[in-house]
Amino acid sequence: MTGNFYGVGVGPGDPDLLTVRAINVLKTADVVCLPRSSTDNDSVAMKIAGPYIPGAAELVDIATPMTRDKAVLEKEWKRGAIKIADYLCQGKNVAFITLGDAMLFSTYSYLLKELLLLLPELTVQTVPGITSFAGAAAHLNIALAEGSEKLAIIPAVDEPADLRPILEQFSNVVLMKVAGKYDEIVDVLADLGLKDKAVYISKLGYPEQLVTFDLDSLKGLKQDYLSLILIKRGGL
Amino acid sequence: MTGNFYGVGVGPGDPDLLTVRAINVLKTADVVCLPRSSTDNDSVAMKIAGPYIPGAAELVDIATPMTRDKAVLEKEWKRGAIKIADYLCQGKNVAFITLGDAMLFSTYSYLLKELLLLLPELTVQTVPGITSFAGAAAHLNIALAEGSEKLAIIPAVDEPADLRPILEQFSNVVLMKVAGKYDEIVDVLADLGLKDKAVYISKLGYPEQLVTFDLDSLKGLKQDYLSLILIKRGGL
Repeated sequence: MTGNFYGVGVGPGDPDLLTVRAINVLKTADVVCLPRSSTDNDSVAMKIAGPYIPGAAELVDIATPMTRDKAVLEKEWKRGAIKIADYLCQGKNVAFITLGDAMLFSTYSYLLKELLLLLPELTVQTVPGITSFAGAAAHLNIALAEGSEKLAIIPAVDEPADLRPILEQFSNVVLMKVAGKYDEIVDVLADLGLKDKAVYISKLGYPEQLVTFDLDSLKGLKQDYLSLILIKRGGL
Repeated sequence: MTGNFYGVGVGPGDPDLLTVRAINVLKTADVVCLPRSSTDNDSVAMKIAGPYIPGAAELVDIATPMTRDKAVLEKEWKRGAIKIADYLCQGKNVAFITLGDAMLFSTYSYLLKELLLLLPELTVQTVPGITSFAGAAAHLNIALAEGSEKLAIIPAVDEPADLRPILEQFSNVVLMKVAGKYDEIVDVLADLGLKDKAVYISKLGYPEQLVTFDLDSLKGLKQDYLSLILIKRGGL
């Protein structure tokens, strides 16, 4: 019998933002897979989910390199899928934990596709998680969107100028993973008169958490990978 | 001593999609407020959170009428806030439960603003929840967005033709509460060649749950209030 495969969103950072379903899945997992970029000393997702992972579970690192080189990524996803498929074929239940929500900008969805090529009959259950932007909005007591407002969720951008039409069209925008282009993003916001209608949050739920409404104060500094900006045209 | 106020997102439908934090808040609540539209026989949020609400907690209905008449709504929000403020002034801890995430298209954010006008020093904690679209994507094992894809979250639309520029600009779009304009929305999707790249879900996590990739099959039928369409230009 092939084991079952679970993708588990563990939320943005606090262990108490896991769902009951996520905890129940982790309880019964024989193997828990941790995404790990080469630069991580510890898996961030493991820090969050650790309290709920049974001592008997086998922990397996899955490499998720911090690169945009598609050839490198695809090779790693295939490798990860083969590793996971091997455990599943041994009849073990395998859970892959992932930051935030499992189906939004997560390595999990790529791994799942590779895995289904290897094991098309696999039983899969994905457990949704609290997104970083829902966590941030709750922390700030600021609505992400109300009434007829439209919300745009934008991943790390290569070219901040491309944000202009979106920022002009959408009343509410979340920019995720802003670290790489922070200064240029702030310049675009300033140019559109939106700099004072934005808030920056990084490492939500961690001791190093940082919140600021003064976006200029962080210019020239190195931003954390887990950082986002929420912009509301109507004000915060 | 004034009590504390909590806004609790209870997720899309399954009681096991509440977070640990949500459950812990409900455990200690003296009063649990339930949003209730005039047409509800039972509060939907109450059905989801019911298992976690202590028997000793006082249950209080807060009217959330199904209208877009701003004057009517504002009057009800003020009334609801006064009702809640009264309990808080008695030193009671009050939790307001809300479907999905507390800060996304929820009555909670309006009530909170009114409440802070009455009690500016109030201690507020908002607990984020699993959004309906995260729940739907997990159920379907379909990614909401991957890599550099941009995701637009669009509430109930008055004029489906207004969706055109968004559907042309965004690779991935979630249309929430599509019931009112379903047939016209499907026509717009067909016109843009997106009808076969979309999936409809209603009442996720309820016995009446309905999923279909054949959007035409529901034309002319009455749709449920809790319904959404996910569109992915790259295919599902």
